[in-house]
Amino acid sequence: MTRQPPTFPSRGPSDHSVRDQIVEAAMQHFGHYGYEKTTVSDLAKAIGFSKAYIYKFFESKQAIGESICASRLAMIMAVVDQAMDEASGPSDKLSRLFKALVEAGAELFFHDRKLYDIAAVATRDHWPSAEAHRERLHRLIEQILREGRDSGEFESKTPLEEASHAVFLVMLPYISPVQLQYNLETAATAAQQLPALILRSLSAPYVTID
Amino acid sequence: MTRQPPTFPSRGPSDHSVRDQIVEAAMQHFGHYGYEKTTVSDLAKAIGFSKAYIYKFFESKQAIGESICASRLAMIMAVVDQAMDEASGPSDKLSRLFKALVEAGAELFFHDRKLYDIAAVATRDHWPSAEAHRERLHRLIEQILREGRDSGEFESKTPLEEASHAVFLVMLPYISPVQLQYNLETAATAAQQLPALILRSLSAPYVTID
Repeated sequence: MTRQPPTFPSRGPSDHSVRDQIVEAAMQHFGHYGYEKTTVSDLAKAIGFSKAYIYKFFESKQAIGESICASRLAMIMAVVDQAMDEASGPSDKLSRLFKALVEAGAELFFHDRKLYDIAAVATRDHWPSAEAHRERLHRLIEQILREGRDSGEFESKTPLEEASHAVFLVMLPYISPVQLQYNLETAATAAQQLPALILRSLSAPYVTID
Repeated sequence: MTRQPPTFPSRGPSDHSVRDQIVEAAMQHFGHYGYEKTTVSDLAKAIGFSKAYIYKFFESKQAIGESICASRLAMIMAVVDQAMDEASGPSDKLSRLFKALVEAGAELFFHDRKLYDIAAVATRDHWPSAEAHRERLHRLIEQILREGRDSGEFESKTPLEEASHAVFLVMLPYISPVQLQYNLETAATAAQQLPALILRSLSAPYVTID
């Protein structure tokens, strides 16, 4: 097979808007009928494009799904990054991280559009975007713990990797959209009580708690 | 409508064995085809009973499903109760509770039979057996924390109800079989790291940790 040079520079803008149009229609369709039950033919019919034309932009239904998933996760990370910028220190960062994850996750996967189904498939099939999102948050938690240890705010007896991973596990049901759907009822309480529990577990033993 | 006296005393034993036979067949069927996709007609055909005969014992498919769910949850609680009897004190109780929930839950809902689907419906529709199971575990956690506070092993600054509920929330993804299915990969690590994190959060501030 001959390698072809990328063609996007010449057709970029218009290709981009077609891609966006496909993604937008797919999001509506998946939200209504579910990701698993929708075929590329269904999408083609709904948009009024031919199947072949859609395949020019996305090699499979999964590629469309991953594009939706990745863009939602990027929006969550943007909310998280902003929360981190506004935080006053490591303890505040952990509390805000939790709150941002719960709120942005619920908003972007469930309130706005019903994307449960994509979230479920992304988790089950270990889509790269979903795995990268988890890994990024795990590393962020580790970094916050390191900061807190350096400043003497957090205990440093527990191995950093264990303490970070344990905190990551506490947050995971709220990080993973597919699990978040089962925790929406308790999410507001969780966003208060779990960071508080985590901070009690991290507090340096010689600090007097008043 | 005339109220009829319960008829079970006269036919108890044989009715029981028919009920068991229906439940056993249903469990196999649900495990294969899923709870949602199976109808009472499918079950009747599989067992060789008439639909009407099955309705003599269970008023609906959900009643069969609840019976399966309740018996599995009762088996989990039996494992939990034994673990509590064997524990040496409140800290050990929390660690063993977590381990028992993860192991019994995984075994009873996923390894033995594939009952994901029943677990999902039980959670979604708030089946009484699932709700009662959560409530019982919440109360057990509260009781363990009370013991630990009384013995001076746990801090008692945080309101008991908040501390208990926070611990319950950490355990919930492993208590709820529908969430446990997403956490099976990390369950063994979680059963080590999460009780340790919880115990760090509960430790009385004046106790020296060595």
